[in-house]
Amino acid sequence: MDRRRFFKLLGGGILLSPLLRARAQQGLWDAKTLEPLKALGTPLSEYGERASFEAEVVRYISPNLRTRTSGADFAPLEKLNGVITPNGLHFERHHGGVPQVDPQAYRLVIHGMVGQPLMFTLEDLKRFPSTTRTYFIECAGNGQNGYRNPPDPNLTATRSRGLASNVSWTGVPLALLLKEAGIKPEARWLIPEGMDAVAYTRSLPLDKAMEDVLVAYAQNGEALRPEQGYPVRLVVPGWEGSIQVKWLRRILVTDLPTMSKDETSEYTDVMADGKVFAFTWIMDPESIITYPSGLQQIKPGFHEIRGLAWSGYGRITKVQISFDEGKTWREAALEAPVERRAFVRFKLPWNWDGKEVVLWSRAWDEAGHTQPTRGEFFQKWGRNNRYHYNAIQAWRIAADGRVSNGDRPLSGLAQGPSGGCGGEVFDV
Amino acid sequence: MDRRRFFKLLGGGILLSPLLRARAQQGLWDAKTLEPLKALGTPLSEYGERASFEAEVVRYISPNLRTRTSGADFAPLEKLNGVITPNGLHFERHHGGVPQVDPQAYRLVIHGMVGQPLMFTLEDLKRFPSTTRTYFIECAGNGQNGYRNPPDPNLTATRSRGLASNVSWTGVPLALLLKEAGIKPEARWLIPEGMDAVAYTRSLPLDKAMEDVLVAYAQNGEALRPEQGYPVRLVVPGWEGSIQVKWLRRILVTDLPTMSKDETSEYTDVMADGKVFAFTWIMDPESIITYPSGLQQIKPGFHEIRGLAWSGYGRITKVQISFDEGKTWREAALEAPVERRAFVRFKLPWNWDGKEVVLWSRAWDEAGHTQPTRGEFFQKWGRNNRYHYNAIQAWRIAADGRVSNGDRPLSGLAQGPSGGCGGEVFDV
Repeated sequence: MDRRRFFKLLGGGILLSPLLRARAQQGLWDAKTLEPLKALGTPLSEYGERASFEAEVVRYISPNLRTRTSGADFAPLEKLNGVITPNGLHFERHHGGVPQVDPQAYRLVIHGMVGQPLMFTLEDLKRFPSTTRTYFIECAGNGQNGYRNPPDPNLTATRSRGLASNVSWTGVPLALLLKEAGIKPEARWLIPEGMDAVAYTRSLPLDKAMEDVLVAYAQNGEALRPEQGYPVRLVVPGWEGSIQVKWLRRILVTDLPTMSKDETSEYTDVMADGKVFAFTWIMDPESIITYPSGLQQIKPGFHEIRGLAWSGYGRITKVQISFDEGKTWREAALEAPVERRAFVRFKLPWNWDGKEVVLWSRAWDEAGHTQPTRGEFFQKWGRNNRYHYNAIQAWRIAADGRVSNGDRPLSGLAQGPSGGCGGEVFDV
Repeated sequence: MDRRRFFKLLGGGILLSPLLRARAQQGLWDAKTLEPLKALGTPLSEYGERASFEAEVVRYISPNLRTRTSGADFAPLEKLNGVITPNGLHFERHHGGVPQVDPQAYRLVIHGMVGQPLMFTLEDLKRFPSTTRTYFIECAGNGQNGYRNPPDPNLTATRSRGLASNVSWTGVPLALLLKEAGIKPEARWLIPEGMDAVAYTRSLPLDKAMEDVLVAYAQNGEALRPEQGYPVRLVVPGWEGSIQVKWLRRILVTDLPTMSKDETSEYTDVMADGKVFAFTWIMDPESIITYPSGLQQIKPGFHEIRGLAWSGYGRITKVQISFDEGKTWREAALEAPVERRAFVRFKLPWNWDGKEVVLWSRAWDEAGHTQPTRGEFFQKWGRNNRYHYNAIQAWRIAADGRVSNGDRPLSGLAQGPSGGCGGEVFDV
């Protein structure tokens, strides 16, 4: 952050003058402020819990879910900081509840077109050379609130793009395990299967597996949370969340995709002409302004516009902000280090003059991809689909400072939520 | 990790052959393994908790503490992965318990040699331009188990160097707040004060404050844990933990250090000749092998030696491992990205032949500093001190695979724990 530029922006003056001056002496001696000094605090503890005052910082669960044992919840993006998603707030997605797996009983089997079928305990996996990398995971169904027409006026950053999170994963490269088993020359696909109630199954190309897939057993330094796949899951960098099979039970090495229920009834993209695009693995570039964002309220004056951006294709190279619905763009700063296939935090210092304005953000990645406008998205994809929505999210700031969904209704587009292909609706 | 080198090391063969082969078919159909598949799992939750099976992964609290409202507990380093310390396991250090501070009532006052005394709410601080950086925090008293002579045979990596942790901090650069207040030309020092029961107070040079000190309100994306200073603390990159005042209440801008109780009764270094070195701020380079480490047990065969290294002077440039007590050294791999004043994970693939061996690790930083041997450390510092112990930690692997403290007793050195300068003993 360039300090000279910051102060130039403010005209070199006091930032928040009426709030800050002169009450200093009073503030130091205020009875309420002095309370903590007068009492011995709480003792050392074995595992730290959050302050009670943080109880409302939680994942968002739609009140419209038919059941809570199949569905998703959203990371509260506008309440988070930096790029690391804390372990308790990583978004969830499952189809049959979260299994409770005993790590002592846990076994991973690799079999099929291999020289030797192998079975690993958790201890075995941890003995292999380890790799730690920070990656985002995003549900292919993220952003689907954007399919709604007219747009939901009560949308928040969380409900817009919160089926995405970003943590440091530790595990063993799957390639090492496959080499251990010995891959036969005719093998082309892997079929990972989970041990949840739906035995969640996907088909994964062998090339991707050999490239950078991890068999992961830790997130942000400690064991996986049960809802993130405890004790072991796949991490498939930059690809849709569903293929990153949780509670990993076995991997069948084979020569064809299995066309499982989990990749046919869901996670296929229905095109405008009714044909179905079977496999869309790589997550497209995304960005979301988290401040100021939907349902927040701001006052005129200085604000640092903040948001998150990411792409399954690699590094984010640029994030732009528009204040005139795409006619002109300004470039935001990206917080270092900018890592491949991980969240980046973007920031732009800005002075709000109190007049109504609409903010847009647009991310570019190292492969040259960018986000479409909402109109461009529907021209290309139609409304039969409900996945891979990565159109620009607009936020409107009214003259009274209230922030709301700035997306415009699209004429000629059907009303209501998306037609969508199968599966339950996991938010309204 | 170079895969060819890995397999060359193993002679190209199966890694863990007796454990892995052939039970594959049986494992897939084992009744215990199939259990999770047969039951609907647990529902979506608002804030994720750890698996019940992880209950023993906790901070270490010495059973010898006289009280748990003044003391420290240790991050369980050998049970962690990667470099990020999860929020619940960050080491603790306090002198009067953990205060419970209401964020609505929270105020930060900056006063003294300033143009305008200012008072900030938490919301004010969050409105300033933010910065997110990953930094380690280490207690100056870390490593003090190494002062013990003869060495403690039951030492673990946790009790050796666990008063250190590494998270992503978000906050406002203190420099921006000081510019807001307007620093008078005669100002040279800051006196930050906490609102805990001991009103913890240190003296901080203005230059360091202007360079990179953060007024932090988030760790790993969410609010600080109460024991890490909720809702606001200082983060002083690379400097001893005690100066990174928690539950920050006010900062007095002045021209002299205050020589508070907290920087005279403790955190001064008594030299061999009895003189006292008043301010030793920068944390020296450290390394600790976390696997294999004290009280673990290993079998002959392949192991990835793993550990953590860090330095208050900047980036770690090299970590070396010795198998012959310092006669020869091999270089470990450092996991990317290698950040300044943050933990780095080092790794070295190794085949244990089953014979007794002692492992040493030694870190080098970008300023050219390295760790001394234990003998060199005591030659320089004597035993009147109990801070800034960063000598090499040795681990001995016996022929039966048990790992224990490999430090050798030093003749001519007094027996027992350190004489130490003031303060309570927070481990034995």
